[in-house]
Amino acid sequence: MCDFPPESALEGAAGYWSDRQTAKLGPAFRGSQRMSEEYDVNATNRVRQLRDKAHYDRDTVHAILDAALFAHVAFVQDGEPVVVPMIHARDGETLYLHGARKARIIRLLEETGRAAVNVTLLDGIVLARSAFNSSMNYRSVTVFGAPRLVDDHDEKIAAMRLISEHLMPGRWDELRAPHDREVKMTGVIAMPIESASAKVASGHPEDEKEDYAIPIWAGVLPVTTTIGACVDGDRLVPGVEPSGTVRQLQNRTL
Amino acid sequence: MCDFPPESALEGAAGYWSDRQTAKLGPAFRGSQRMSEEYDVNATNRVRQLRDKAHYDRDTVHAILDAALFAHVAFVQDGEPVVVPMIHARDGETLYLHGARKARIIRLLEETGRAAVNVTLLDGIVLARSAFNSSMNYRSVTVFGAPRLVDDHDEKIAAMRLISEHLMPGRWDELRAPHDREVKMTGVIAMPIESASAKVASGHPEDEKEDYAIPIWAGVLPVTTTIGACVDGDRLVPGVEPSGTVRQLQNRTL
Repeated sequence: MCDFPPESALEGAAGYWSDRQTAKLGPAFRGSQRMSEEYDVNATNRVRQLRDKAHYDRDTVHAILDAALFAHVAFVQDGEPVVVPMIHARDGETLYLHGARKARIIRLLEETGRAAVNVTLLDGIVLARSAFNSSMNYRSVTVFGAPRLVDDHDEKIAAMRLISEHLMPGRWDELRAPHDREVKMTGVIAMPIESASAKVASGHPEDEKEDYAIPIWAGVLPVTTTIGACVDGDRLVPGVEPSGTVRQLQNRTL
Repeated sequence: MCDFPPESALEGAAGYWSDRQTAKLGPAFRGSQRMSEEYDVNATNRVRQLRDKAHYDRDTVHAILDAALFAHVAFVQDGEPVVVPMIHARDGETLYLHGARKARIIRLLEETGRAAVNVTLLDGIVLARSAFNSSMNYRSVTVFGAPRLVDDHDEKIAAMRLISEHLMPGRWDELRAPHDREVKMTGVIAMPIESASAKVASGHPEDEKEDYAIPIWAGVLPVTTTIGACVDGDRLVPGVEPSGTVRQLQNRTL
């Protein structure tokens, strides 16, 4: 999708749609007071297509990583690519990834030494006046780095808490403490963000100059991912209601 | 996410939630009349964690691929993993992927010979009575295969149409025909599905036996991705309205 369409929509449009993006993306797009610190651009993270949609500043990269509820993690096994969805959380310049301690990906991320992580939030289908110029609005980040298995007990608990809070803010302290057995069975990977790039597409369709005269409707179909109203589990202790933190999780838009 | 949580929620719960999944997943989960044809299970596609959530039948794999609006494509470049979101469409047992002809991924998918593709649709955050047993509901598919660049003009046009129709059903025939230049600038990858597996998690939280007595709320926060109401482009020919096909695209849930 990041490479679709090939040469179109080279400028993000202003107005309604961008404002919506701005609201979603937070500080990086609200015009920060300070110069954003940027990731170095190298052969690994350089965005080659639709370069004007590229962002290398940490604020933008962080905002997208933090907005997503899961990530796609790629690694190499016996020379072949593998890609797995995993839940994640970020602590500064470290990405934490979570799986079963004995899961293939946890072992292999440790062994193979390199991983690429992509997070993409789809924001819209852009209907242009030609198929070629039709495209998607999205926020996407790719991170490269060297994963390591978290062995230190305190770092592991801290990372488990961070991942839990990323998905369900406020709930960790309401739950019973993890049993030792559970901590042992959990695998946590830490991946320092070595290099990263973001790619953000927003706005209206951009058509060939002559195509604007074609009498066909063009515009955007917004795509929205939302967390809805909570559904009671089937074995609740009678009288137990969702806490304030659970209620706050409802009706969020990513 | 597929590997979260490690050992929990080993049974998909029945009832309300599964029904919702069933509605989403189509024929594969409605109890098909015939025995589903299955992908061979081998070391590449075998699901190792939460095995009871694994599906290898073509109907399930196809339904999830078809429901998603984009895919994550992983390949190996100079021994290192790369993962990129791309739009896709399926034609029988072939997955088509779309990018700029000169994009790195198009060249590399052709050169490196192997790719892994994952599509994951998030359906809910499962709030258990412990962090360990909290998890996600999702539909996920991973496909492995050998990508090839589509050079044949007719296959390329057919694939471009298929991808367009996957995102915007009915619109291809309403748009002007692609210019030759546009076809040349477009890169299409065909990837026969060599092996594949699906993993589907749905239902209520599954807690440790003793944890059901803890007086804390547990349940599911549904996560829904929807296509909303269309937003007019900024340079419409006066009086032009969205066509019936555009209107039909609105208010769909993935």
